[in-house]
Amino acid sequence: MSEEFDPAPGSNTGNENDVFRDADGRISALWLERLRAFLEAGRNDDVASVMEPLHHSEVGDVLEQLDVAERLALVHALDEKFDFSALTEVDESIRLEIMEALPNAAIARGVAELDNDDAVYLLEDLEDIDRDEILSALPVFERLTLKRSLDFPEDSAGRRMQTDFIAIPPFWTVGQAIDYLRAEKDLPDEFYQLYVVDASYTVLGTLPLDKFLRTQRVTKIDSIMNTNFVLVNAEEDQEEAARSFERYDLVEVGVVDESGRLVGVLTIDDIVDVIQEEAEEDIRLMAGVGDEDVSDTTLDTVKSRVPWLVVNLFTAVMVSLVIGLFNATIEQMVALAVLMPIVASMGGNAGAQTMTVTVRALAMRELDGGRLRRLIRREMVVGVANGVIFAVLIGIVTAFRYGDVQLGIVIGMAMVINMIVAGTFGILVPLALDKLKADPAIASAVFVTTITDVIGFFAFLGIAGLWFGLF
Amino acid sequence: MSEEFDPAPGSNTGNENDVFRDADGRISALWLERLRAFLEAGRNDDVASVMEPLHHSEVGDVLEQLDVAERLALVHALDEKFDFSALTEVDESIRLEIMEALPNAAIARGVAELDNDDAVYLLEDLEDIDRDEILSALPVFERLTLKRSLDFPEDSAGRRMQTDFIAIPPFWTVGQAIDYLRAEKDLPDEFYQLYVVDASYTVLGTLPLDKFLRTQRVTKIDSIMNTNFVLVNAEEDQEEAARSFERYDLVEVGVVDESGRLVGVLTIDDIVDVIQEEAEEDIRLMAGVGDEDVSDTTLDTVKSRVPWLVVNLFTAVMVSLVIGLFNATIEQMVALAVLMPIVASMGGNAGAQTMTVTVRALAMRELDGGRLRRLIRREMVVGVANGVIFAVLIGIVTAFRYGDVQLGIVIGMAMVINMIVAGTFGILVPLALDKLKADPAIASAVFVTTITDVIGFFAFLGIAGLWFGLF
Repeated sequence: MSEEFDPAPGSNTGNENDVFRDADGRISALWLERLRAFLEAGRNDDVASVMEPLHHSEVGDVLEQLDVAERLALVHALDEKFDFSALTEVDESIRLEIMEALPNAAIARGVAELDNDDAVYLLEDLEDIDRDEILSALPVFERLTLKRSLDFPEDSAGRRMQTDFIAIPPFWTVGQAIDYLRAEKDLPDEFYQLYVVDASYTVLGTLPLDKFLRTQRVTKIDSIMNTNFVLVNAEEDQEEAARSFERYDLVEVGVVDESGRLVGVLTIDDIVDVIQEEAEEDIRLMAGVGDEDVSDTTLDTVKSRVPWLVVNLFTAVMVSLVIGLFNATIEQMVALAVLMPIVASMGGNAGAQTMTVTVRALAMRELDGGRLRRLIRREMVVGVANGVIFAVLIGIVTAFRYGDVQLGIVIGMAMVINMIVAGTFGILVPLALDKLKADPAIASAVFVTTITDVIGFFAFLGIAGLWFGLF
Repeated sequence: MSEEFDPAPGSNTGNENDVFRDADGRISALWLERLRAFLEAGRNDDVASVMEPLHHSEVGDVLEQLDVAERLALVHALDEKFDFSALTEVDESIRLEIMEALPNAAIARGVAELDNDDAVYLLEDLEDIDRDEILSALPVFERLTLKRSLDFPEDSAGRRMQTDFIAIPPFWTVGQAIDYLRAEKDLPDEFYQLYVVDASYTVLGTLPLDKFLRTQRVTKIDSIMNTNFVLVNAEEDQEEAARSFERYDLVEVGVVDESGRLVGVLTIDDIVDVIQEEAEEDIRLMAGVGDEDVSDTTLDTVKSRVPWLVVNLFTAVMVSLVIGLFNATIEQMVALAVLMPIVASMGGNAGAQTMTVTVRALAMRELDGGRLRRLIRREMVVGVANGVIFAVLIGIVTAFRYGDVQLGIVIGMAMVINMIVAGTFGILVPLALDKLKADPAIASAVFVTTITDVIGFFAFLGIAGLWFGLF
């Protein structure tokens, strides 16, 4: 458990009602009950006083715990005290719901207080007409900065960047730079390095604060700046930028426009979200649940899941047509119908295993040249090995169950074939999708299970038909 | 594409052989070929000169690209120039393979150069006997520090922490602190905040560098320090610590022992790896591939996958026993065997969708109180809705395919039942596992598919048997 110096009101008063999080780290039921009571009674000052000590991410957690009406009541009760950065911490559906319920003027007032990157995050999903109205209500400098960020492609580094940063000239001394930082009021809230730039804002070097701090005042900046630095392009996808952070263990990186001018910075807290979303997205895509949150409405959920189920219905019918080819075979030996799902199911699972490893390796850019060849070779061998292992197992089980050794041999042969097919297509399908520039996470599962189902049923029923002369 | 000031040798000489990464961000084939040629010819000085400019994570990438013999040749060629922190960037199997091939004395020499957290990371997976030998070859201070870290539980904050940090007393002025930082040679490589502690190393406050920098020299530390801070317990699981980072957008956090003394710090770069591993682990567990890397050997891969496939074989046989109950029914109407996989497959997919959403929501601690009830209600309704939609679709398809409206009605009814079952168990199974303190990601899929298979076959064959009087 985190030993937190809990920012919730009076967590040390010993009054249970006052404790924000319970022992499991969840928001305390008593605390929530009290908030609800205040909301219901319209006691806005009390609402404000219990909410005031919370971190904006905790305000976000509270919003997610409330239902629609309570959420809006909370935002209204806090009025101008509502910190819009809490909205960057909630699910998209909740964010849109709250923003749609608020008048654009109120949003403009709230957004004006935010860091540029948080403001962009809130505005980017709004309807064009609302967004333009909000932007036009902002002071001219904020408006232009936000517009420039919003002009970069969706999910680009330019969309995620913070446009406040500290740029200093190379000919200053450390002392001059410190005096500047002490005197200047309008600095970013948090920063981890200084950017050394020329007159056109081309980056000449970076200076991490720790190094800066440890240097004597008389030292010239250009003699201590780091000239071996990484920059990201504003047009670049945020996932590319995230990979630079991981690769070089960065905490902050400069973002440049197409002419190489420094236009903003990306910090690690934004990137943590990107990294998490990326892995999250692959999990969801592989299960066919789309871009879905637990707080989505029922209708949105149905909409997000139906397409995948339609695809699955289509492939299931196709598979069933394959089985239909063996109508006569099954009629003569109904045990085949009883056993056939085993072969298909084992192939499906083995295929899913290989596919998952391949999809994730592709996502992490782990599959270049030599490793790819080794992976393909390994999966073939694993397919054969698992095929043999499970052929023997299911063969014995079947032989005993039906007192028929031949039936055991037939199902064993089908098993070997399907396991090899599973290994082969578990790797080839995601690779092919990747080559075709499709996201391997989304469609691999359909293709692979369809293939292992078709081959599983076909091999088992086909071999049985031939072996027992049932055609 | 990252506009990197590429640290690879002579990336601006225009010589293709010299460029480390190709346009896709992968390691250039030409560059690798040259390295291989140097390794083969035993030209150790040339090997050292092409490797020298690389970041340690790039050295890790190179190691992953090479085969076993080449990897060891590279490490031997670099000899004392080999930076052991590169080993923190490679797959576990490669790390162990290299460390097992090296004499313990060489490892001790390499580990002595590392930050404490990297050293722990390398040592924790070694055999006890090797680890003790390496530790005893280290200077006494390093040995004791590493031993203390290694005494904390596996995957705890204490294992991941860096034991170098900057602690200052509250009564100093900013000026005194800056002078100390400038004078002191033995400081951590990177740091983002200072810790204000009393004589017993209890944390009184934290001071982010940016705030520190912007304050006049005469100001007292205790007047500007942040007293509303988060600490992490050394015994705490690293995933708990990662959640604190996400919740409060931290970059660095202090780690305290059971008596509240500051013993180390966790920085965001370690936590990024934890967050990624956690999501990664869920993906792998859900697909039943265990703790597996693309570079694992064939034997390790088979070992990691067989257990899940054995479980699946067991449940598949169980499902087939259920079908076996309807032997006589199928014999009288073979169309049932042809159609039955459709109902099971649709239920399996719908169940996987609900399960994935639930497993991830549990992993992210999103399911407290109100949200859980809403999720359950939503999934029931989604189950009914999807059940009706796909009942109608498959009903019509079946009625046309077999020219038999009654068969269409029967499969439709089975579909509705199985979709509701899928929604219900897709949420209840992970919840139950979570309550039982099992990881919902690992076993949910088996249970859910087994249930939807059993119910799918049972409902369809059972309803058909009753409807057509085939029992």
